[in-house]
Amino acid sequence: MSASQSLVIDLNCDMGESYGAWHMGNDIAVLPFVSSANVACGYHAGDPSTMRKTVAAAIEHKVAVGAHPSLPDLVGFGRRTMQITPQEAYDMVVCQIGALAAVAATQGARLHHVKAHGALYNMAAKDRGLSDAICRAVRDVDASLVLYGLAGSQLIAAAQDLGLRAASEVFADRSYQDDGSLTPRSQPGAMIEDVDTAIAQVLNMVQNRVVRSVNGRDVPVQADTLCIHGDQPNALVFARALREALSKAGIEVRAV
Amino acid sequence: MSASQSLVIDLNCDMGESYGAWHMGNDIAVLPFVSSANVACGYHAGDPSTMRKTVAAAIEHKVAVGAHPSLPDLVGFGRRTMQITPQEAYDMVVCQIGALAAVAATQGARLHHVKAHGALYNMAAKDRGLSDAICRAVRDVDASLVLYGLAGSQLIAAAQDLGLRAASEVFADRSYQDDGSLTPRSQPGAMIEDVDTAIAQVLNMVQNRVVRSVNGRDVPVQADTLCIHGDQPNALVFARALREALSKAGIEVRAV
Amino acid sequence: MSASQSLVIDLNCDMGESYGAWHMGNDIAVLPFVSSANVACGYHAGDPSTMRKTVAAAIEHKVAVGAHPSLPDLVGFGRRTMQITPQEAYDMVVCQIGALAAVAATQGARLHHVKAHGALYNMAAKDRGLSDAICRAVRDVDASLVLYGLAGSQLIAAAQDLGLRAASEVFADRSYQDDGSLTPRSQPGAMIEDVDTAIAQVLNMVQNRVVRSVNGRDVPVQADTLCIHGDQPNALVFARALREALSKAGIEVRAV
Amino acid sequence: MSASQSLVIDLNCDMGESYGAWHMGNDIAVLPFVSSANVACGYHAGDPSTMRKTVAAAIEHKVAVGAHPSLPDLVGFGRRTMQITPQEAYDMVVCQIGALAAVAATQGARLHHVKAHGALYNMAAKDRGLSDAICRAVRDVDASLVLYGLAGSQLIAAAQDLGLRAASEVFADRSYQDDGSLTPRSQPGAMIEDVDTAIAQVLNMVQNRVVRSVNGRDVPVQADTLCIHGDQPNALVFARALREALSKAGIEVRAV
Repeated sequence: MSASQSLVIDLNCDMGESYGAWHMGNDIAVLPFVSSANVACGYHAGDPSTMRKTVAAAIEHKVAVGAHPSLPDLVGFGRRTMQITPQEAYDMVVCQIGALAAVAATQGARLHHVKAHGALYNMAAKDRGLSDAICRAVRDVDASLVLYGLAGSQLIAAAQDLGLRAASEVFADRSYQDDGSLTPRSQPGAMIEDVDTAIAQVLNMVQNRVVRSVNGRDVPVQADTLCIHGDQPNALVFARALREALSKAGIEVRAV
Repeated sequence: MSASQSLVIDLNCDMGESYGAWHMGNDIAVLPFVSSANVACGYHAGDPSTMRKTVAAAIEHKVAVGAHPSLPDLVGFGRRTMQITPQEAYDMVVCQIGALAAVAATQGARLHHVKAHGALYNMAAKDRGLSDAICRAVRDVDASLVLYGLAGSQLIAAAQDLGLRAASEVFADRSYQDDGSLTPRSQPGAMIEDVDTAIAQVLNMVQNRVVRSVNGRDVPVQADTLCIHGDQPNALVFARALREALSKAGIEVRAV
Repeated sequence: MSASQSLVIDLNCDMGESYGAWHMGNDIAVLPFVSSANVACGYHAGDPSTMRKTVAAAIEHKVAVGAHPSLPDLVGFGRRTMQITPQEAYDMVVCQIGALAAVAATQGARLHHVKAHGALYNMAAKDRGLSDAICRAVRDVDASLVLYGLAGSQLIAAAQDLGLRAASEVFADRSYQDDGSLTPRSQPGAMIEDVDTAIAQVLNMVQNRVVRSVNGRDVPVQADTLCIHGDQPNALVFARALREALSKAGIEVRAV
Repeated sequence: MSASQSLVIDLNCDMGESYGAWHMGNDIAVLPFVSSANVACGYHAGDPSTMRKTVAAAIEHKVAVGAHPSLPDLVGFGRRTMQITPQEAYDMVVCQIGALAAVAATQGARLHHVKAHGALYNMAAKDRGLSDAICRAVRDVDASLVLYGLAGSQLIAAAQDLGLRAASEVFADRSYQDDGSLTPRSQPGAMIEDVDTAIAQVLNMVQNRVVRSVNGRDVPVQADTLCIHGDQPNALVFARALREALSKAGIEVRAV
């Protein structure tokens, strides 16, 4: 990394996950801290009115708007693995991107990226067939969209092979294995709850392009975008502290 | 009507109204007879895979593809009046057009028109607030889309006031009142079941711009597009006979 | 009212209106103040797991469990009028009561009552055909169930004609017209926001069987059960004050 | 098998799998041939009106009525594996049984059995945790219900351990492995398309309590109930031929 090249990271957050009369998340409070918003498209959350309001709020905060497509599972909030074919994945992602793209168009905006939600994200990360289908859906709707996916996952590989711009996503609050994968939540030490440790991990990933694994190894990692969880108790405290730390370190926060 | 101006009418049909494992309609058989297809967008029918297949079939038959947005009512097939606000109508129409537009985009096609489905169509026909909301949704997503609406209804008036291209829809199998409105189905004589009478009514509407009302008056009517019902027993017989009659009369069939 | 007959009123509250990951209401906090719970059955809210937890909490608090069936409208939370046939109303009410009855059965409990939700409640209050259908559904599933309906409405008349036990519902926070109907929310003075005024209205309804109308008349009213809104900011403050006032007045709170 | 004990088998068929305006299956035509009906409960098919009509038709044909609960997946018709917890399975099965039990109650009938649908059936067959949850749900709602499950599967084992009556289901049109399991559909020879072969397999299973495996071994099998597919082209031809063969062999057809 040459001294003349400024360091940069995108901070993304899942948003618009209310549904009808049900409220979820803290979108308005989080928006000042992030540079891109992944907006639910109706399959796990996000009715049409919520989609409109969320896009409006993101635009107002100059935050990049992305689609956050999911498996069709309102009751399970898109978090339950479901055995779908690549063709089904392609079709549902196309429709969800399209719905949000139209919402953005009515507000004079264009979509910037696509990040799959929950189980679809996790399934695709390990399944090249699903990743290919999702990436083809993104490309076929709008080849200028950026594909957000887990760093080192099949989603990133599929996007790159298709010529899509890909943004590798990293996590501040998850520990990493020696192979660069996330420590499964079922294992001890999977979550990083200390704010300072989490921030240090982020700085290390951006400045040195490595993450210290649970075994103490420095593992290379590509950190284009960091996921901020908006609905957790200390989300805003963390977001504020992170922004300060990034600012102090001269790391710019902006969409990919 | 000057002799040099050729007569033309669009024949439209609701399509893509299957859902998952459930099949409805006779799309492939009807496509050769029509010039525009109104494709269900998931709210009353039309899962993402059905949307893709329907758009593909329409493109293959060189039939114009339009969105067929509905109230959110799968069980009721979008036929039950529901008290929604204009804002809700706007939002749901935007999302449905967007989903289908993305499906079309993946196949290198663009949407041509929008025709509301079932109860939404009927409610809007009489309610200027709903009509305005629907037409604004269409315009805000893509101002080049043609709005299909009941001839003489609030939908047409709203579209024209907003500067949208509007296509006035007429029916071959419904009788008309002296004021140009459809005879309510609850009244005797509402339906025209005789094929020859139905075809004669269409020819009269296209050639003379009038319809003979149930009281025998010649009532002016704008006939830009005619609705073909694809799921009725004699649909294909009627469609074939109509196409022959239109051809014999020198009336061209093409999308608006 | 003879001196020897104790005065009594039921306090009911809509509950179990969370859905999957979305939380709504304040059920646990409200349960100590009420004597009957109307539990959502999945059509406007209340997934199966929420139904189970809500019934368990009601049983734990010795609160009578009732079904709270709705129109099928998750996005609209069952609040949007929908044109359904009496047969459709019958069928959907049967299924919703049955689902909750099974949940109760797994916990060794039986349902006590049925109160329609939102738009279904309001539609039926004025529509005898719908009221008859709902009451027949209740009777046909379990003739021992109590039908909760707006005092003076078609629901109460239908229940009584069918031989169902009926509980007339009144409101503390709504003003009444000279004919005993609620002042429409669109009119000024519809809502009673002052806690003392609301409590005085309840006491008057229970002790004197009248309500003071907006025009100052004493209008007869049957007050078997009072609706407590659990999701409003001052719900618990009001519930606590009401219970104290009822206790001081020697009015017992128990299910019908 | 003593000569004095008559041989018997139940013929079951999935029914009520229409949904709103969408029609599926051939229930009325199949009912004369079967002794028990598995009625969809709304999660993969079967809106409340369809449930009512299907139960009525089954009663009219003196066919035992059972619940056919599913994963919540209308678009996928309940055929897609979904990762649910045993608690979720329990809750959704309770609600579905309850809904259908209420429909039956309104017609003076009681449920006879429960057979899980599609992916839920297949998942549970191999997963004891799911099977336990489903069987507990059945028992907790009504301990007199019979649990239908794949012969030799975890569902049967779980039912027996809980003291539920279990009916082992066999298939006429599927070949079996040496261990008594079905040949996976992905393998050649999985389906038995020849009617005579299929019928011979059924007779062998009922009369001799064995099935000839794909490798030619006689494998013991418990054949309490046979699944008849109602929606396949030759379903009625097969059903008629099977009934004749069973009759000729002196095997009685009746619900378990």
